[in-house]
Amino acid sequence: MKLEKNSVFLLQGDSITDFYRTEPPINAQWHLLGRGYPQYVEALLDSRYPERHIRVINRGVSGDTSKTLKARWQADTFEPRPDWVSILIGINDVWRQFDLPMEPELHVSPADYRRNLEELIETTLPKVKGLVLMAPFYMEPNRDDAMRRMTEQYAAIVRELAQKYQTVFVGLQAEFDRYFQFYNTNAMSWDRVHPNHVGAMIIARALLDAIGFDWNHVPGAED
Amino acid sequence: MKLEKNSVFLLQGDSITDFYRTEPPINAQWHLLGRGYPQYVEALLDSRYPERHIRVINRGVSGDTSKTLKARWQADTFEPRPDWVSILIGINDVWRQFDLPMEPELHVSPADYRRNLEELIETTLPKVKGLVLMAPFYMEPNRDDAMRRMTEQYAAIVRELAQKYQTVFVGLQAEFDRYFQFYNTNAMSWDRVHPNHVGAMIIARALLDAIGFDWNHVPGAED
Amino acid sequence: MKLEKNSVFLLQGDSITDFYRTEPPINAQWHLLGRGYPQYVEALLDSRYPERHIRVINRGVSGDTSKTLKARWQADTFEPRPDWVSILIGINDVWRQFDLPMEPELHVSPADYRRNLEELIETTLPKVKGLVLMAPFYMEPNRDDAMRRMTEQYAAIVRELAQKYQTVFVGLQAEFDRYFQFYNTNAMSWDRVHPNHVGAMIIARALLDAIGFDWNHVPGAED
Amino acid sequence: MKLEKNSVFLLQGDSITDFYRTEPPINAQWHLLGRGYPQYVEALLDSRYPERHIRVINRGVSGDTSKTLKARWQADTFEPRPDWVSILIGINDVWRQFDLPMEPELHVSPADYRRNLEELIETTLPKVKGLVLMAPFYMEPNRDDAMRRMTEQYAAIVRELAQKYQTVFVGLQAEFDRYFQFYNTNAMSWDRVHPNHVGAMIIARALLDAIGFDWNHVPGAED
Amino acid sequence: MKLEKNSVFLLQGDSITDFYRTEPPINAQWHLLGRGYPQYVEALLDSRYPERHIRVINRGVSGDTSKTLKARWQADTFEPRPDWVSILIGINDVWRQFDLPMEPELHVSPADYRRNLEELIETTLPKVKGLVLMAPFYMEPNRDDAMRRMTEQYAAIVRELAQKYQTVFVGLQAEFDRYFQFYNTNAMSWDRVHPNHVGAMIIARALLDAIGFDWNHVPGAED
Amino acid sequence: MKLEKNSVFLLQGDSITDFYRTEPPINAQWHLLGRGYPQYVEALLDSRYPERHIRVINRGVSGDTSKTLKARWQADTFEPRPDWVSILIGINDVWRQFDLPMEPELHVSPADYRRNLEELIETTLPKVKGLVLMAPFYMEPNRDDAMRRMTEQYAAIVRELAQKYQTVFVGLQAEFDRYFQFYNTNAMSWDRVHPNHVGAMIIARALLDAIGFDWNHVPGAED
Amino acid sequence: MKLEKNSVFLLQGDSITDFYRTEPPINAQWHLLGRGYPQYVEALLDSRYPERHIRVINRGVSGDTSKTLKARWQADTFEPRPDWVSILIGINDVWRQFDLPMEPELHVSPADYRRNLEELIETTLPKVKGLVLMAPFYMEPNRDDAMRRMTEQYAAIVRELAQKYQTVFVGLQAEFDRYFQFYNTNAMSWDRVHPNHVGAMIIARALLDAIGFDWNHVPGAED
Amino acid sequence: MKLEKNSVFLLQGDSITDFYRTEPPINAQWHLLGRGYPQYVEALLDSRYPERHIRVINRGVSGDTSKTLKARWQADTFEPRPDWVSILIGINDVWRQFDLPMEPELHVSPADYRRNLEELIETTLPKVKGLVLMAPFYMEPNRDDAMRRMTEQYAAIVRELAQKYQTVFVGLQAEFDRYFQFYNTNAMSWDRVHPNHVGAMIIARALLDAIGFDWNHVPGAED
Repeated sequence: MKLEKNSVFLLQGDSITDFYRTEPPINAQWHLLGRGYPQYVEALLDSRYPERHIRVINRGVSGDTSKTLKARWQADTFEPRPDWVSILIGINDVWRQFDLPMEPELHVSPADYRRNLEELIETTLPKVKGLVLMAPFYMEPNRDDAMRRMTEQYAAIVRELAQKYQTVFVGLQAEFDRYFQFYNTNAMSWDRVHPNHVGAMIIARALLDAIGFDWNHVPGAED
Repeated sequence: MKLEKNSVFLLQGDSITDFYRTEPPINAQWHLLGRGYPQYVEALLDSRYPERHIRVINRGVSGDTSKTLKARWQADTFEPRPDWVSILIGINDVWRQFDLPMEPELHVSPADYRRNLEELIETTLPKVKGLVLMAPFYMEPNRDDAMRRMTEQYAAIVRELAQKYQTVFVGLQAEFDRYFQFYNTNAMSWDRVHPNHVGAMIIARALLDAIGFDWNHVPGAED
Repeated sequence: MKLEKNSVFLLQGDSITDFYRTEPPINAQWHLLGRGYPQYVEALLDSRYPERHIRVINRGVSGDTSKTLKARWQADTFEPRPDWVSILIGINDVWRQFDLPMEPELHVSPADYRRNLEELIETTLPKVKGLVLMAPFYMEPNRDDAMRRMTEQYAAIVRELAQKYQTVFVGLQAEFDRYFQFYNTNAMSWDRVHPNHVGAMIIARALLDAIGFDWNHVPGAED
Repeated sequence: MKLEKNSVFLLQGDSITDFYRTEPPINAQWHLLGRGYPQYVEALLDSRYPERHIRVINRGVSGDTSKTLKARWQADTFEPRPDWVSILIGINDVWRQFDLPMEPELHVSPADYRRNLEELIETTLPKVKGLVLMAPFYMEPNRDDAMRRMTEQYAAIVRELAQKYQTVFVGLQAEFDRYFQFYNTNAMSWDRVHPNHVGAMIIARALLDAIGFDWNHVPGAED
Repeated sequence: MKLEKNSVFLLQGDSITDFYRTEPPINAQWHLLGRGYPQYVEALLDSRYPERHIRVINRGVSGDTSKTLKARWQADTFEPRPDWVSILIGINDVWRQFDLPMEPELHVSPADYRRNLEELIETTLPKVKGLVLMAPFYMEPNRDDAMRRMTEQYAAIVRELAQKYQTVFVGLQAEFDRYFQFYNTNAMSWDRVHPNHVGAMIIARALLDAIGFDWNHVPGAED
Repeated sequence: MKLEKNSVFLLQGDSITDFYRTEPPINAQWHLLGRGYPQYVEALLDSRYPERHIRVINRGVSGDTSKTLKARWQADTFEPRPDWVSILIGINDVWRQFDLPMEPELHVSPADYRRNLEELIETTLPKVKGLVLMAPFYMEPNRDDAMRRMTEQYAAIVRELAQKYQTVFVGLQAEFDRYFQFYNTNAMSWDRVHPNHVGAMIIARALLDAIGFDWNHVPGAED
Repeated sequence: MKLEKNSVFLLQGDSITDFYRTEPPINAQWHLLGRGYPQYVEALLDSRYPERHIRVINRGVSGDTSKTLKARWQADTFEPRPDWVSILIGINDVWRQFDLPMEPELHVSPADYRRNLEELIETTLPKVKGLVLMAPFYMEPNRDDAMRRMTEQYAAIVRELAQKYQTVFVGLQAEFDRYFQFYNTNAMSWDRVHPNHVGAMIIARALLDAIGFDWNHVPGAED
Repeated sequence: MKLEKNSVFLLQGDSITDFYRTEPPINAQWHLLGRGYPQYVEALLDSRYPERHIRVINRGVSGDTSKTLKARWQADTFEPRPDWVSILIGINDVWRQFDLPMEPELHVSPADYRRNLEELIETTLPKVKGLVLMAPFYMEPNRDDAMRRMTEQYAAIVRELAQKYQTVFVGLQAEFDRYFQFYNTNAMSWDRVHPNHVGAMIIARALLDAIGFDWNHVPGAED
């Protein structure tokens, strides 16, 4: 498993990452991570690999596009000195073109998306041990849907940049498509953008698989 | 994995099971299961075995002892016609003897605990395909602590009844003890009774392991 | 225009009709009709045909299926002695089969849907001057989508019953499909079930067209 | 219809325009326009002319007089680069002289009203394709009422300025007077200043008529 | 002054009497009387005639018509054994005919108004030392207004019944008309139904004048 | 009556004057004056002398002593350009010496009280037509009580300054003492500092008597 | 110390005993006793005599008089099977005669007070090991004050009944009078009825002294 | 007793001292001290030694470590000019190392703890008559527990500094250990850090004993 002992793992993104992390917490350590996939990532890491003492930090902000994420990158990402950073951004870059088509100030074009991401990557790579790029996904099973097609276009940019910069890459669309062989999209999400707890587990699983997580690791055992 | 296609799996217990399940939900399907281990159980089952279409139901009630659980058993357990039922009860039977020592009306003795459990088991076995008995645990690493010793006494009763009635048994104390080799109990719980999300994952993992869950199962694959 | 002077026109349905009608009203006469299409129906009727003095009553209840609507029909529909009644029901009968597939107690089959509707119609026809049956719709532009196909199946039942009982019929799917030639579904609805204010106007327009509303009628003029 | 494809139409005014637009929205796209006539304007434009892709923006502020509107004009009007602007202001300039007669700091005289409006018009005309001036109205059917007479004096100023600057003009008093042939003013408004939903539709209709809206336009058809 | 030592004086009516009497009180004795004219009546009686020890009770209920007042008369009026009772009812009997014209179930005709009042009077007279009938009023200075004319018709019924049953009578319309020689109606009320604190004082003054209150009475002096 | 037509009358003081004036108002003109004696002053002035068009302004602030009042005097008193000003201050200067005896920073000595008042008076006299000094009072009927004796000492300072500067003076202690011949102090106040509505009327009456108010003045009549 | 090991000590009374005991508790064991003298009684008993394991129960109800206390005595006192009971009641029996003099239905005469108390005592004595009667007090230092004199009359009845029935008696007036040699009554209470935390300690001390509490007892030591 | 007449005694610390002192107070003088041991200290001092007129001030802040306490020391401690100061700090310095082990920015090492305390002491001694150093404690009866051992290490530093600087010292661990001979730790605290009211009394008692408090002192008597 790639995260070494005492690593700090910081997760960046939009509402899918944020998922109510600023809500009044129920108890002291529980909800600092929100209720989305970051919580699952820490619960899985810490229950399987407690000997690693990994710290997971959620810095997602609801509504973010790659443009607004870029604006807060310096302040929000490097202060806790992460060893690893993951980024899941882009669905709002796309969505605003479909749900608020007449508010162009909120749209982010593919070219800008690529440029924003490259800036994030280049700023980050020199400061961390590892970077994970997660591609945006849309829980629309119809492959001809315009918004799905556009989302796949943005996801392809992520994949391409991951190769160019040799970072870890996580493609999520295929994971969700597999699930939709058994369930309608409505069973996971009403708006096809925000996954429920099952979807959060799918994201956590894909992310952990990408960094070499062993699902049968015995706590305290040699790797 | 023991749960067959279209199974209904009902989880009974106290606040560790309940975990805010009646709080206003954030979205429609997400929080009906609360924020404790039942949510993790469903997220893991459904993301790994979507082809099974398993329905998980949380019926935990905060503050319950085996005595109050018995009083609501008929009304709360059988109406949704579960195929499998799990029970995690007993820590309040013990705790009240320590935190409210002068309110004996709230205490449940080992003998009463055994009697209550047996009644639950005998009422339930004829109506279900499988029953899981989970033993209470106390996140106190000191094995000489009086409340830990008493909790282990109650846990032993559960183990004994599981053998007598040939049900699935889940012992949790050892799972938590292993974790406390790496972390202080305060990192998981301030009151040593309510686990955080990592503890919820430990419970979910132990429960799923006990019913044959394969952590590397590919969704849709033959078992 | 078919509604005669002093007519009472009662609109029945689910959340699309209800649309927050029980929320604390802003002022005395304004919000008794909620914020959905019923408000638009009254605003259009009363601003174009004030000389008719038509009373519009909203009795929609969020979450209703044809089954729960039937259960409250006697109590909720006839007490204000309506002259005309409209019904828009069915999307929840369908939706629950997709978003809560493992809770069959919430599903309504096509056969039951037909039976429920027929009972409503037969109970109502003897007591009113006119009945309007509105067909459920789903704001999914993909005609191959499973939930859209099922919704169309339920809509066809409504159309058939409207013919059988010679009531006014309002088909809404085509109206929305026309709109989606120009906008993505996300611009009107995130869940593809609840239309925004533009969709409410589309419903109001279709309903009023079906009862002979003249958009250029001058208030007070002879028809 | 005068609004061309992709036009931005910005509506300025007081509480009649504002109508709770800053209240927590019910869903994402629905209530950004408040619950008054601006919502009706967009719903009618977008349901009849979706091919035009017109963006409607509500910038009304409750309590505004022409004096306070002038103070926020630059900041509040031009930033979204409107193609068309409408203004409905003046009833508070009048009302404060009647309901708070001993607070002269809140009154706006006819001369100041004219001066304020002219400044708004002259600042705006060079920057937009069209300007609509709507005259204030008072839902008092008694033509001898002092406040109605004063309101008509302010409305006459608007009409005069519309002619002088060759803008579109919308007179609303006659529209409401026609309605009051059939209903008492109390049926529309308790304070005779804030119209209910029927009055909002009357305003929307008059505004749309003034810019050539065709009520029978078929979505997507050639004009 | 007609109220003898230790008298209980109970004031009945609608929202003009009620005026928030059930709102959380600020301190113990202060707000049991609401914030309308009943508070002024007690403050004036008790500050001028403390030696009389008169108890004032407010039993107004917002929204009441003579019909709903009659329904609660027995339960709400006689239990505290009043010596004197005053009644101010009727404006809602009239108002509903104008603001909710199509909801006839809320209207009370002149004949029903007379019948309701007579029943109240006949039930009450045998049980009290004095009865005060206050006539409804409408703060509309235009004497030709339809709702004012109807209110005056109802007020005439009160006057007539006061003569028939020889009770104290208080006519309020003239008192308000005198005030409107100096102020516009908007300065006292936006809806022309609910008076502000100046109007409450006008009502209190007229009521106290009718029962022989001496404005220059010295506390403790012989009458 | 000393207040001329169109006078502005500003009332300054502590919580007895303030009396919840900043609470959310019930309706637009009603509660800007709070619920204490200022409201009664306006209601009496305006219902008896509407032809004078007098504006009453409440600027009391709960908790004020003469020291804190002095600190906000310039900003809070002169901006609305009052013709007459009244001041009721001092009970907190005294009370803090009894209820918070060990917090000397909150106490105001008689010498400081006199100095503070003189500064207020000298700053104000040149700017107004009339000044009313009201003396603090304590609703303790026992004349030997230490706090009552101290309050009387402070009241004597007010009386003395009123004579020195030839302002209107209002002594309230005697008015309340007269009331307590008939009622226990508990019937008016639990803390003996804050009067209820009857006490507010006693203050309003004494204040109005001091400026020549005629209780039998007929609205609109020559004086 | 008279309370034996494992005793249950139940404290009955009005708001002085209740003191917010039903407010949402801050944590589990802390506030079940409210914030008045009962909390102090338990804190002192349990910190000095932990070896006795005494359970303290607060059953005070705000607003109670001896009359309303009697009405709930059976239900509220005996169910937890107390060994010792204390009663502090009567100040409301007196207070209502002074603060609500015209509401005789709320007053309790000395004769009724005696009768009510005797009934409580006779019902209770056979069921308990010890009974403590605490006399009401009024924090008015003026011994000629009417309400103080009446309170002392009621206190004398308590003393007399304590002698007649040979119960423990606690007189509190003298304790408070001693305090008022050093502080004004306002430093302890604004209404002279509800003591602050210092007064709560005075009550707790007097009560504990009366049952033989040793302030220098060492926890665990032989008595 | 060491506190002289008119002394100001200021208590500094973390949440154990703070204990909700900023919560909305129930009445004016009662809750300025919070609900923890400071309230008990004042209640005991003032009820036994009212002739001393001692002022107790609570300045505890929840969550404080010696590091954050140091940062606010100047602003929070000296402004009310205390004669005596007590400090109870350190449990959070320890606890964060156990409950948030991976957030080192929140930890305070023994060396830093000593340094912080010395700075507080040296800054304070020249300005006060007396200083009380209270040692942190952990309500864990198991002497081998890691967090208890570390707490004792920090407590030893306090004891050592008290000797070095010749201040009053209060050791609390032994007091609590004595209590736990009779009760389980759960009866006093769920998290073993925050004591309930019995624990607050134990702290108050130890603090008062350390400054020579006589539990049998008669108010007003010579010492």
